Amino acid sequence: MNPQEIQADYLLHPRWIVPMVPYGVVLEGHSVALSGDRISAILPRAESLGIAADEVVDLPSHAVLPGLINSHGHAGMSLLRGYADDLPLMPWLEQHIWPAEKTHASEQFAADGMELAIAEMVRSGTTTFCDQFVFPDVGAATAQRLGMRCQIAFPVWNFPTRWASDTDEYISKGLAVHDQFKHSTLVSVVFGPHAPYTVAEDDLARVATLASELDTVIHIHLHETAAEILQAMDVSGERPISTLHRLGLLGPRTQCVHMTALIDEDIDLLVSTGAHVVHCPQSNMKLASGICPVSDLRAKGVNVAIGTDSAASNNDLNLFGEMQTAALLAKLHGRDATALPAADALHLATLGGARALGREDALGSLEVGKLADVIAVDLSGPETQPVYNPVSQLVYACNGSQVTHSWIAGEAVMWQRELKYIDLAALGARIGEWHQRISATKSSTA
Amino acid sequence: MNPQEIQADYLLHPRWIVPMVPYGVVLEGHSVALSGDRISAILPRAESLGIAADEVVDLPSHAVLPGLINSHGHAGMSLLRGYADDLPLMPWLEQHIWPAEKTHASEQFAADGMELAIAEMVRSGTTTFCDQFVFPDVGAATAQRLGMRCQIAFPVWNFPTRWASDTDEYISKGLAVHDQFKHSTLVSVVFGPHAPYTVAEDDLARVATLASELDTVIHIHLHETAAEILQAMDVSGERPISTLHRLGLLGPRTQCVHMTALIDEDIDLLVSTGAHVVHCPQSNMKLASGICPVSDLRAKGVNVAIGTDSAASNNDLNLFGEMQTAALLAKLHGRDATALPAADALHLATLGGARALGREDALGSLEVGKLADVIAVDLSGPETQPVYNPVSQLVYACNGSQVTHSWIAGEAVMWQRELKYIDLAALGARIGEWHQRISATKSSTA
Repeated sequence: MNPQEIQADYLLHPRWIVPMVPYGVVLEGHSVALSGDRISAILPRAESLGIAADEVVDLPSHAVLPGLINSHGHAGMSLLRGYADDLPLMPWLEQHIWPAEKTHASEQFAADGMELAIAEMVRSGTTTFCDQFVFPDVGAATAQRLGMRCQIAFPVWNFPTRWASDTDEYISKGLAVHDQFKHSTLVSVVFGPHAPYTVAEDDLARVATLASELDTVIHIHLHETAAEILQAMDVSGERPISTLHRLGLLGPRTQCVHMTALIDEDIDLLVSTGAHVVHCPQSNMKLASGICPVSDLRAKGVNVAIGTDSAASNNDLNLFGEMQTAALLAKLHGRDATALPAADALHLATLGGARALGREDALGSLEVGKLADVIAVDLSGPETQPVYNPVSQLVYACNGSQVTHSWIAGEAVMWQRELKYIDLAALGARIGEWHQRISATKSSTA
Repeated sequence: MNPQEIQADYLLHPRWIVPMVPYGVVLEGHSVALSGDRISAILPRAESLGIAADEVVDLPSHAVLPGLINSHGHAGMSLLRGYADDLPLMPWLEQHIWPAEKTHASEQFAADGMELAIAEMVRSGTTTFCDQFVFPDVGAATAQRLGMRCQIAFPVWNFPTRWASDTDEYISKGLAVHDQFKHSTLVSVVFGPHAPYTVAEDDLARVATLASELDTVIHIHLHETAAEILQAMDVSGERPISTLHRLGLLGPRTQCVHMTALIDEDIDLLVSTGAHVVHCPQSNMKLASGICPVSDLRAKGVNVAIGTDSAASNNDLNLFGEMQTAALLAKLHGRDATALPAADALHLATLGGARALGREDALGSLEVGKLADVIAVDLSGPETQPVYNPVSQLVYACNGSQVTHSWIAGEAVMWQRELKYIDLAALGARIGEWHQRISATKSSTA
């Protein structure tokens, strides 16, 4: 399109553009136009001056890049940040987190936890996230209200929570939420069976059938620890991923979260089915769960996304730290400093996430016609100077606080670090009340 | 002392105090008084009201703790942040970093790199750092001018740099710098023989003798990689740490930096000599160097400090990220989620550093009579809410940008994130010039 024919809502003049497509390219002296919910132009600065724009945004020391995609978390659990630390996965879940959730995880808990999580995620560059938590209807409505793009996986367990009493109810209520948001452009609702060790085979098979009928994503914790695998082998003689495959659960719409302690056969199954892996390096390290072999997976053609997991096991929802940890951990694990270079770490949080979501057509890169999910990161601070390569700076030196602007579907949800939809003081007051309430019951649950 | 008898320059009223002594304690409803360069009182809020203070500082959502100690770095190399990434240690040094330094590392390079490093370190809570770089006279003078506490290790190599042409000159110039700063209360100058593989045995023995005569610290890279150890074994049949011990270099004034790939005999030597270990987890991961077994060392009574290493191999000088990585890495390495809990990670960056510096009498904790090196960290942001335990928040959720105030020797070097001595715009302009100059020669050196 001729620049003169473009009517832009925003015309961004950044120092650098990191479009992700073409891969490895950094543009200087270019501009980005956003029109409605789409990217309408990426072109040399001089040519951009012909574009009629409602708002021109000078970003003289900023890198502009696709909004980051956090492909695994439990937003509601932000209210349990730092509630219990330095414990292995199962005691942490069974003796601390699940009892606290049993006592407190109400609709309001889900709504306030979601708002806290979104505030943190937007401030650190995330524009899309994948979530699995009770009261997914509340989570989805909150995200929609706050202008945040997300995939909400409704939970399925074989035990009751305050949201549903049995597996049938999880599925029927979940399908209702899926239906409720089927026309949303921001929120998609998918299946979130928790894990092979908390959902029986029959129920997993049912989820596989329903997800296939609805052509919908399945988001599942898988091979989070070696112990999980050993326990399954003891019971069934089968590795959990093989069980999922036998039940028809693995496919190009499946997001397998964690995936530590893999053997070649596991990776072969991922390759042959086209299932995606969501790497959660900080959570896996903090819970001493193990290591997801990201470099091996990528080398074999498996798509890998990245997630923070919840603020209770991380303890932040900051993808900048997560990308750095992913890069560092891959190098350590492979004893190879060239493993997962900066550009590949950024891929996990952009195109890798978009592909896992089945939204590579619209998300994960800055390309004309894609959705205008865009962030600006100011690299002028002493923490990120000098800049030889903005991609290195983004992955190895940014801590997230340098993100200044965020657009989701072309809407400016953060401007000079001010959030459009979230009143931090009011939110802080509500979080303070949750802190008091939860602390008061801590001795009885912890 | 009776509160009425205290004349304080600053009286801090924080929400929490994390004094580090007594260990594991968090005080609420208490205040801290700073008088001259010392902490003059820590007492209940009500009693503190009797103190006459020039300035009362309300910190209603802040944790106050000892300023952090970064026990290993090369501040000048901040100008090479992101210059070369995703490479193993030796090619990274030999093909990129050392050639760039050979071309550019002048007095002005050392001064500007130091100022950039100090800006970043103060903004992320560091009040004391240990450095090893060429032109230590310039580095020391710059730190002194900027009110920053540091230990400057003058380098000793067997090859020439722009600062000195041979080993004799490194030592004689270094001793002159040591002498020049012997009355400084902020800067101490110590011996910085680079590593056993870059300094001959005779020269190391000389350093040991001189350091002993002057009762001065030795700061040395040691066992950074398994390859370094294997190479030494090939040449001498001896592990590098054993060589240092034979040469009389190991003792309670020795700081051994990195210390990966350790065997029991190595650890026994650390225990028997009282030498200190400086753990650099992010640099070790990024260069795929290996893992320092922090939990084992601490269990056997070895004192462990923490360092970022340079911004060229990290790529930041942020001890908050470093503490988190240390905790996560220890858990992963030991396959034990209880390893290096948050309080112990904070110990590395406070008392562990103070002990390594031989300054446990004056640094590393908030105690009456100790030096007033104090930071305030605002935990009110969504990234660090709610707060069940401020120590967990500091280690697992803070990214450094929450540090609002910093006092060094009782002087407020940062106030509401404004630096007292550094003009960031002017510094940024100088860094921009370095960037242009270094980029112009990049193709010929890289």
